[in-house]
Amino acid sequence: MIGATGGVSSTVALGLAALAEGLTEPHGLVTAHPDLEGVELVTPEDIVFGGHEIRGESLEAAVRHLRAESGLFDASMVEKCASILGNMQRNVRPGTLVGASEAVTALGDRAEVPADATPGDAVERIAADIEAFRVTNKLARVVVIHAASSEPPPPPALLAVTQPAALDQALTGSGEVLLPTSTVYALAAIKAGCGYVNFTPSLGIGLPAALKDAEARGIAFMGNDGKTGETLVKSALAPMFAMRNLPILSWMGQNILGNRDGAVLNDPNTREAKIHSKEKTVAALTAGAPRVGVSIDYVPSLGDWKVAWDYVHFSGFLGTKMSLQFTWQGADSVLAAPLIIDLARLVDLEMRRGTSGLMKHLAFFFKDPMGCDDFNLFNQWRTLVNHVTQETN
Amino acid sequence: MIGATGGVSSTVALGLAALAEGLTEPHGLVTAHPDLEGVELVTPEDIVFGGHEIRGESLEAAVRHLRAESGLFDASMVEKCASILGNMQRNVRPGTLVGASEAVTALGDRAEVPADATPGDAVERIAADIEAFRVTNKLARVVVIHAASSEPPPPPALLAVTQPAALDQALTGSGEVLLPTSTVYALAAIKAGCGYVNFTPSLGIGLPAALKDAEARGIAFMGNDGKTGETLVKSALAPMFAMRNLPILSWMGQNILGNRDGAVLNDPNTREAKIHSKEKTVAALTAGAPRVGVSIDYVPSLGDWKVAWDYVHFSGFLGTKMSLQFTWQGADSVLAAPLIIDLARLVDLEMRRGTSGLMKHLAFFFKDPMGCDDFNLFNQWRTLVNHVTQETN
Amino acid sequence: MIGATGGVSSTVALGLAALAEGLTEPHGLVTAHPDLEGVELVTPEDIVFGGHEIRGESLEAAVRHLRAESGLFDASMVEKCASILGNMQRNVRPGTLVGASEAVTALGDRAEVPADATPGDAVERIAADIEAFRVTNKLARVVVIHAASSEPPPPPALLAVTQPAALDQALTGSGEVLLPTSTVYALAAIKAGCGYVNFTPSLGIGLPAALKDAEARGIAFMGNDGKTGETLVKSALAPMFAMRNLPILSWMGQNILGNRDGAVLNDPNTREAKIHSKEKTVAALTAGAPRVGVSIDYVPSLGDWKVAWDYVHFSGFLGTKMSLQFTWQGADSVLAAPLIIDLARLVDLEMRRGTSGLMKHLAFFFKDPMGCDDFNLFNQWRTLVNHVTQETN
Amino acid sequence: MIGATGGVSSTVALGLAALAEGLTEPHGLVTAHPDLEGVELVTPEDIVFGGHEIRGESLEAAVRHLRAESGLFDASMVEKCASILGNMQRNVRPGTLVGASEAVTALGDRAEVPADATPGDAVERIAADIEAFRVTNKLARVVVIHAASSEPPPPPALLAVTQPAALDQALTGSGEVLLPTSTVYALAAIKAGCGYVNFTPSLGIGLPAALKDAEARGIAFMGNDGKTGETLVKSALAPMFAMRNLPILSWMGQNILGNRDGAVLNDPNTREAKIHSKEKTVAALTAGAPRVGVSIDYVPSLGDWKVAWDYVHFSGFLGTKMSLQFTWQGADSVLAAPLIIDLARLVDLEMRRGTSGLMKHLAFFFKDPMGCDDFNLFNQWRTLVNHVTQETN
Repeated sequence: MIGATGGVSSTVALGLAALAEGLTEPHGLVTAHPDLEGVELVTPEDIVFGGHEIRGESLEAAVRHLRAESGLFDASMVEKCASILGNMQRNVRPGTLVGASEAVTALGDRAEVPADATPGDAVERIAADIEAFRVTNKLARVVVIHAASSEPPPPPALLAVTQPAALDQALTGSGEVLLPTSTVYALAAIKAGCGYVNFTPSLGIGLPAALKDAEARGIAFMGNDGKTGETLVKSALAPMFAMRNLPILSWMGQNILGNRDGAVLNDPNTREAKIHSKEKTVAALTAGAPRVGVSIDYVPSLGDWKVAWDYVHFSGFLGTKMSLQFTWQGADSVLAAPLIIDLARLVDLEMRRGTSGLMKHLAFFFKDPMGCDDFNLFNQWRTLVNHVTQETN
Repeated sequence: MIGATGGVSSTVALGLAALAEGLTEPHGLVTAHPDLEGVELVTPEDIVFGGHEIRGESLEAAVRHLRAESGLFDASMVEKCASILGNMQRNVRPGTLVGASEAVTALGDRAEVPADATPGDAVERIAADIEAFRVTNKLARVVVIHAASSEPPPPPALLAVTQPAALDQALTGSGEVLLPTSTVYALAAIKAGCGYVNFTPSLGIGLPAALKDAEARGIAFMGNDGKTGETLVKSALAPMFAMRNLPILSWMGQNILGNRDGAVLNDPNTREAKIHSKEKTVAALTAGAPRVGVSIDYVPSLGDWKVAWDYVHFSGFLGTKMSLQFTWQGADSVLAAPLIIDLARLVDLEMRRGTSGLMKHLAFFFKDPMGCDDFNLFNQWRTLVNHVTQETN
Repeated sequence: MIGATGGVSSTVALGLAALAEGLTEPHGLVTAHPDLEGVELVTPEDIVFGGHEIRGESLEAAVRHLRAESGLFDASMVEKCASILGNMQRNVRPGTLVGASEAVTALGDRAEVPADATPGDAVERIAADIEAFRVTNKLARVVVIHAASSEPPPPPALLAVTQPAALDQALTGSGEVLLPTSTVYALAAIKAGCGYVNFTPSLGIGLPAALKDAEARGIAFMGNDGKTGETLVKSALAPMFAMRNLPILSWMGQNILGNRDGAVLNDPNTREAKIHSKEKTVAALTAGAPRVGVSIDYVPSLGDWKVAWDYVHFSGFLGTKMSLQFTWQGADSVLAAPLIIDLARLVDLEMRRGTSGLMKHLAFFFKDPMGCDDFNLFNQWRTLVNHVTQETN
Repeated sequence: MIGATGGVSSTVALGLAALAEGLTEPHGLVTAHPDLEGVELVTPEDIVFGGHEIRGESLEAAVRHLRAESGLFDASMVEKCASILGNMQRNVRPGTLVGASEAVTALGDRAEVPADATPGDAVERIAADIEAFRVTNKLARVVVIHAASSEPPPPPALLAVTQPAALDQALTGSGEVLLPTSTVYALAAIKAGCGYVNFTPSLGIGLPAALKDAEARGIAFMGNDGKTGETLVKSALAPMFAMRNLPILSWMGQNILGNRDGAVLNDPNTREAKIHSKEKTVAALTAGAPRVGVSIDYVPSLGDWKVAWDYVHFSGFLGTKMSLQFTWQGADSVLAAPLIIDLARLVDLEMRRGTSGLMKHLAFFFKDPMGCDDFNLFNQWRTLVNHVTQETN
């Protein structure tokens, strides 16, 4: 896990512990859906948790913080899992601040985080950490999942880094191109031969030269930006309007949230990347050119809870304007965590099956699925189930 | 149309006129969806409108009433279609009050409605009307669509009418079994060899002996209860929760509406039938045994507008309770009318193709689809598109 | 407290402990409002908690249950207050099931509850308990607050019990009149010379002969039905519409809740009393005759949380129909508890001041304030502040 | 009316006509409230409508536009008032574009609007128009109400214009200070000896030197920004939380609207002024420092309708977080128009009574009442009623 003791990753850690100990039902786990029964997936107890982190807070402290601030998790479950979280913590290595935004750098209070001289140095160090993690824990496969704070949208110069030479230059840190932290982690994952998932709207593996490298090295990868709440609902409702031939006039969404992600998104530049990712679904699923808007506001009192209000204005028969509005109230980390466990299991399955390159069949899990233009949740579901349940030879 | 000058049927009439005159886009018409392009469907201008009605209000008056009370329809559109509505009105024949509830009987202010001596007499009269309508207008096929006021749930004795003899007895009006009006109309439709659709939760063709008769005579039929608003949303959202393996704890819906349907549903007994129909979708689409409730209240100030508020309580990862609530604001007649035009076109298609019996592929259009247990909107859509677009030989 | 270990009373107990220990801010306590500063009110630490209860659950168990089921209260606060709750528990005496509904009787699992032979016996026993409580704890004054489960509306025969003789007859249990449990408790409170507050819609002290008796004996009393959530909002919003001369067309409310109160209200007869109480505010605060409706549904998954959705349809300038809808999400016990502490302090103040009879200035706290026809929250507030802050001579 | 054929003013015109003709009830008119009965106010039929406008659209066209786009107004009412609107139109004079923002200048399509050489010239011209209007129509008093498009917040240099000399300099247009159009109109109103009301968040009469001038000349004036919808609700609900001692943690509002005001507010700079005005109410009415946010988005499909969603997060007893959310759906022009008629009547009353200077008792009508720090709707109401109903000697 990149961002290994953040809200999402801590919940992943607690969840793995609770599932392994039989303390909870697998609610929210797509891989526990009856339609996927029979698929041989790694069990929660066989998954070893580890990662990189720039903040000093431990997994256990993060879990207790979510509990106190946001009312999440049963008290006795936390107590029973505390020692397991302590063991997992040993696998959390210092992250890197190379290429980080100001907002993110301000969060970096972990004493051990070294001042990597160049992006290339950071890549080497992190890849070596992953390799050591694999060896120490005798792991068959490693999946790197990026769940660190959102970054601002990449400048055009970054998207022009298509050739190995340009990437090498960027890794020295001496050119004009500044690699974002998410891409540094992605390059380390590629170097270490891991499966890779980008659960955020950050660039990550999306740097053109990184994509080429990943394909060349047979890496299985997918992203971007986990589809956890408001966008999930959009991807179910927009097809409904389309099937009934009811044109969308406007679809406006207001998101308020209080966690660290919200604090980072309070920076207008970073927010832009997130909004861009969130606006795609409705635009892709509706004919015409509806007015689509998403706003995000940081409301600290909400803690890990996110409240989203969407107003959908549509045109009915004989030009009659009607509306649907919804309010979604969900705990962000708790929505994301099971999807990350799902992705770890499904990417591991692909690696065993020998898949490499872009895993388009995982589009179901993402707001902005790489290489896919079908945002219809139901089509994505069918694609996922068909792909996963068909045996490879 | 049974209930030919009610809110829904009047909107169907206005819609057919406006489409034929090129005054409106086919918004809300499923049969205008790009995925059904190429299917040879009867055009709106080739559909001849007619029906039966117990109230004295004309089509034009009903349309103007909807406009004044509920703010529906563009003024100039109504003016341009007024004379066409006048022509259609000539095809509206007196309905029957045989078997009607008190609430419905109270609405029956049309002077010409005869006091049919027995249900059988009513069946004969209505079938003869339909036959005359067919001949006069030189029609290849007639589809009867039931859109009259909702009836109370059928007593068990009715569901025991399985044999022709029992039905014959009931038609004399002398036995203990009282045929509801909707079934009288359905029997007339069967007798006249029409396609038949029940757009309401009433019994209609669902009387066991009527179903047998319909199958024996090669009638194509389907029902029950058009899926226009709140239930439509449920049938899109409930699968979303299921795919994400998020168990529904409770799903409570509150409906308020102000039209004649609302007034009739103000009778607790009639409301029960409607609620029963509306509760099926969530129960069918969710695992476990969630608390499911629907309430309906008559709020005259809303006119034809219906407001539905649904509160969905669900369980996320690690037992975290979360919620989604939505408010749907739609004009009931305007939501129903295009679906009725769709059904007329699609049943006509089946009749041309030689289909008879239950048309399960039309489940997409119904709250409580006869003979179907798949309430998932997306599966229903796929079934519809596959069926309709495949050529028959 | 009548219903001394129910959700509301348990929260009162925890709240008194937490306030006395300085573990919490007085949020939600009206008597901590700056406008009442300087009024000499009994402090939380000087209030001694006691009461009657028919269920076996202890205060501490009830508090832990609210915590586990509904996510209420900070864990460390509960731990710190546990021994105080244990001390309070000693003051909880067995209640009575005389006159109880079936729904309530089913809850009565406390072994010590005696089978009182007559209502009169129960009155004697409970009054003696209160007297013993007063003596043991060396209390200057006792305030009895009724917070037990709601009862069905009183039959007309009860409201005809206006004379002492009729009341005496009823207390023997031999006549046709069945005194409800709430009235039995009220008579005991009168007998013991306590202040009395009815925080529920039950009859309580409202029996005509009881009212006379209370006045004759110089008892200070008030009710009915604490104004905690949805109705509170109504009493602020309805005056807003009135001041702006915007006529209400319809005001429909849907309440869903999951606690014991919700379970008891699942009985249609009991629900009727509650709905009657809830419907008064809007009717009283609006001109004309708007359509007003309230529905209540039991949704166990919500635990102590109550969700209320209100739809307000109003008429603006030139007859334009507009709407306001709101969703209130509050924890019922947590909303009620501080008001009960407020009422205890304010009734104690009146008793010190020598007030007797109906305390109309407390209307601010009630859905259906006895003897008051001003339901405007702001007028009620002014009356309260003026009354309380003016010194008596 | 400044902005005489905009949505608000056109609705004022239609409303005056409909009231005079007895075609409508005075819904939404505060001055028709029973508590103000007996106050001698000018009747709607005695009010003569006139104003200034930069757009070419006529009153009748504007009214028909609102009807077609937004479904407002009864058709027959519009027909019956059309000729009166035509007469009113003769009193609409060309406005000025001096000092206008780009967004507003783009709207100015009225051919007759002259290119005023300096702000001073515009003031002279407009004052002369008003004078001519008064003479021609034999009016006792004129009230100028500013209802033109919102302007960006005034730069600090403007607020430094405190002395007559600085104002004279600004009127020549040659200095560094650019007078906004709203202030040009206000100066004309002062010069013509009219009562003045600023119904927008623009600067208007708020220029310090203008205020001095108004007071010196005995002008009665008030503003700013009519309290029509979301803020009205806030000013009723925020006191409710305060009275119950429930601290507000966060209060976030999202406004979407589709009319010309929405289009102008699409400019971020202009929007800032409006948001500033809208945020004041909650901040003023709550203790502590809650997170308060307002966002405004332009959604053309809504036409004149505004939808506002507010999420209120508050802290209950024992630190329990709870929430209230509301959705307001109102037609902006229809909400504003009766308040403008009220203000015309009430300012006229003050002028008859000989009042001059700031009319603080009108705070009830404004989002950001000049010179007042009590934002509590109920206190404002009491002040208004007391002031208006007390006879002057």
